[in-house]
Amino acid sequence: MITLSSDFGTPYPAAMKGVILSRCSARLVDIGHEFPRQDVTAAAFWLTQVLPEFPPAVHLVVVDPGVGTDRAALVVRAGEHVLVGPDNGVLCPPARALAGEGADIDTYEIDVDDPRSATFHGRDVFAPAAATVHETDPGHLSGLDSLSPADSIVDLQFPAPERSVEEAVATVLVVDDFGNAITNVSGDVLEGHETVTVDGTRRSIVPSYAHADVGTPVVTVGSHGNVELAVNRGRGETAFDVDPGETVRIGFE
Amino acid sequence: MITLSSDFGTPYPAAMKGVILSRCSARLVDIGHEFPRQDVTAAAFWLTQVLPEFPPAVHLVVVDPGVGTDRAALVVRAGEHVLVGPDNGVLCPPARALAGEGADIDTYEIDVDDPRSATFHGRDVFAPAAATVHETDPGHLSGLDSLSPADSIVDLQFPAPERSVEEAVATVLVVDDFGNAITNVSGDVLEGHETVTVDGTRRSIVPSYAHADVGTPVVTVGSHGNVELAVNRGRGETAFDVDPGETVRIGFE
Amino acid sequence: MITLSSDFGTPYPAAMKGVILSRCSARLVDIGHEFPRQDVTAAAFWLTQVLPEFPPAVHLVVVDPGVGTDRAALVVRAGEHVLVGPDNGVLCPPARALAGEGADIDTYEIDVDDPRSATFHGRDVFAPAAATVHETDPGHLSGLDSLSPADSIVDLQFPAPERSVEEAVATVLVVDDFGNAITNVSGDVLEGHETVTVDGTRRSIVPSYAHADVGTPVVTVGSHGNVELAVNRGRGETAFDVDPGETVRIGFE
Repeated sequence: MITLSSDFGTPYPAAMKGVILSRCSARLVDIGHEFPRQDVTAAAFWLTQVLPEFPPAVHLVVVDPGVGTDRAALVVRAGEHVLVGPDNGVLCPPARALAGEGADIDTYEIDVDDPRSATFHGRDVFAPAAATVHETDPGHLSGLDSLSPADSIVDLQFPAPERSVEEAVATVLVVDDFGNAITNVSGDVLEGHETVTVDGTRRSIVPSYAHADVGTPVVTVGSHGNVELAVNRGRGETAFDVDPGETVRIGFE
Repeated sequence: MITLSSDFGTPYPAAMKGVILSRCSARLVDIGHEFPRQDVTAAAFWLTQVLPEFPPAVHLVVVDPGVGTDRAALVVRAGEHVLVGPDNGVLCPPARALAGEGADIDTYEIDVDDPRSATFHGRDVFAPAAATVHETDPGHLSGLDSLSPADSIVDLQFPAPERSVEEAVATVLVVDDFGNAITNVSGDVLEGHETVTVDGTRRSIVPSYAHADVGTPVVTVGSHGNVELAVNRGRGETAFDVDPGETVRIGFE
Repeated sequence: MITLSSDFGTPYPAAMKGVILSRCSARLVDIGHEFPRQDVTAAAFWLTQVLPEFPPAVHLVVVDPGVGTDRAALVVRAGEHVLVGPDNGVLCPPARALAGEGADIDTYEIDVDDPRSATFHGRDVFAPAAATVHETDPGHLSGLDSLSPADSIVDLQFPAPERSVEEAVATVLVVDDFGNAITNVSGDVLEGHETVTVDGTRRSIVPSYAHADVGTPVVTVGSHGNVELAVNRGRGETAFDVDPGETVRIGFE
C-alpha cells in the first residue's frame, strides 16, 4: 500500500500515480492533495494525526517548497512504515508517531541523478522511489543501490505552548475545512473547568459542537486531543479571528 | 466494497480509510467529501441519486452535525446494500432508493461504548462499524454483537412541490458544482411546453445546456429527472438568484 | 485499469464509478475532477501531460460542454491505450501523446441509442462504454457491436507561439493550482539567457521557484518543458496579471 499526500490540487497527483503504477501494482490511497500550499508545519501536523491509523504502508509525502534546490530527498523507515519525501521537516513528526516509543527510525538519502525536471520531484524523484521502496522489505532498505544512509535530517518541532497557572499561550497549528482552529495545547488543561477566557472573552467548554447553540463560539477538545476553537455550524477561525501561526491566550480563572 | 461520503474535505476522510484498512481489505470508493457542510438534506439528495448506480456495497455516510450528542449511530440494511452513519435522516432517502419497491429495510443501532473522541465518530464509530459490517453477510447483521435492533429512525422527506394548473412552487434542493439549481419538481411538468415563467420571467425549456446561447438562463430536466435552472456555460444559481432551500414559482401559462 | 477525468467536482464522478463497477471490476484511478469547467483546451493540455505516465489503460475523459447536442461520442485507440469521451477535441492531443510516433490511432463512434439523460452522458454513455472497452483487447475494438468506425474527429491544436529573434508571443494555456501560468512556448528559448522581459519588465530566469526570494515574480521551465510565469510561494497569474488564453510578450534582448 502506498498513501499519497501533497499540496498539489489537480492534476499533478495523477502524474505521480501513473509513475507508480508503471512500476508496481501497489494499492494507492489518497491522504489528501489539498494540504495548505507550501505549509510544511500544517502537513506535518495532519500526517502525524492521520498516518498512524493505517496499517504498515509506504507514505509518499510531497509538500516541497524547496524543490529543485539542494535540499535532500529522503526515505525514512519508522517501524513497519516507510515515508518518502523532501528533507524539510515534514517527515519527522509523522515518523515519530508511526515508529512509536522505542522503535527504530532509519533515514536514507535518495541518490538523485539528473532528474527529468527541477520543479516536479514528486513525479521525477519521490514517486519512483516510493515504488521501489514498496517492492522492498522495510528491513532491507539499506540494500537498495539508490539509497545512502543520511548524515542528518531536518527536524520540525511544533511550537510548545507557554503555560502558567493562570493561562496558556496557545499557537494555532492549523484550521480544518470546517473552520475549527486547532491549537498546540493539550485538551487536558480544560479538565475541571466549565469555561475559559480566550483573549479575554469568556467561552463555554463543550464536549462537541452541537452542545452549543448554532453560531456560538466555543472551546472544545478535538479528535486530535488538542484544544480547538470552534463555532457550532460556523467557522471558529472567523469568530476567534485567528490564523495558523497566531497565538491566543487561554485563561483559566 | 465500501463507499465513503462526507462533508469533511481534507484530510479527515483519510483517517476513516486508515481505520477501515487496518481492519479489512475492502475496496474503497470515494463518493465525495465536499458535500455541503452540515447539510443533511443535500447529502441525502445526492446519495439518493448516486448510490443506486453501485453494485451491492457498504456505504459509509458521515454528514453529522450532531456528533457527540445522543443521536444514535445506525447500520441500515437496504436490499443487498448496507448504509452506516448517524441517525439524522441522511440515511433514509438513499435507503429507500437502494432497497427498491418491496425490499426490506432493517435498522440497527451501533452500540457505542466510550468512543475515542466526541467530535469524530466517522473515525471512531462509523468506520470501524463499516469494516465490521463489510465482513458480514447483509442477511446476518442481526447476529453481530455490536448491533441492536433500532426502535425508530429519523426520517427525512424532501419538501413536496405545491402544484396547481397554472404553476408549481418549487424548492431548490441543491446547487451542483456547475451552478445548476436542482429543484424538487419532476421534469414531467414541462412536457408539452416550450417555455415557462420562473418567478415571472419567461425562460426557454431546452433538452441540454448547449441548446441555448452561451450565458442564457434556461430551464431543463437534469440527469436526476427534476426541473433544473441553468445557464449554458454559466451558473444558474446566480442568474436565477436562488439558494438551496429557497422557492421559485414556475408558471405554465 | 480505467482512469477518470472530468470537470464535474462532487459527486457526479461517483455516479460514473458506480456504473463502471456495476459492469466490471476494473481498477479505477482518478486523474482529477476539478479541471477548469467546460475548458476543453485546459483538459487536453493536462491530459497530454499526465496520461503518458500511465501503463496501458482505458482513459475516460468527460469535459463535455456540448452534452446532449449532436456531437459524437468517441472511443479512440492510441497504441495500447484507449480514450473514451466526447468528440470536441479533448481526446486528440492526449491520443497523439499516448500513441507516440508512428503508432496507430483508430477512432470509433459509440452508437448512442436513447440515453437515459440528455445532460449526463458521462454516466449514461461514456462510463458504460469505458467498461465495455475495458473488457476488450484494444486490438479488437472493431469487433464491438456498439462501435462504428468514425468518419472524422474534431481535432484540437494548441495555439502556436509567434517567434522572432527578439521576442516570443506566448499564450497562457493553463494556470495550475499553485498559480503558475503555463505558456505554449518551449523552455528551449530560455537557453543562454539569465533574464528575459515579460511584457516589457525584466525578470530573472530560475531553475526552480525557491531560487528566488519569496514573493519574487520569475520565469522558469516547468515540469512540462514549457516556459512558466511563477512567484516563489505566490501566484504567477496574479503577479503577471494573466489568464488562460491571454498572450504575453517574452523579450530576449
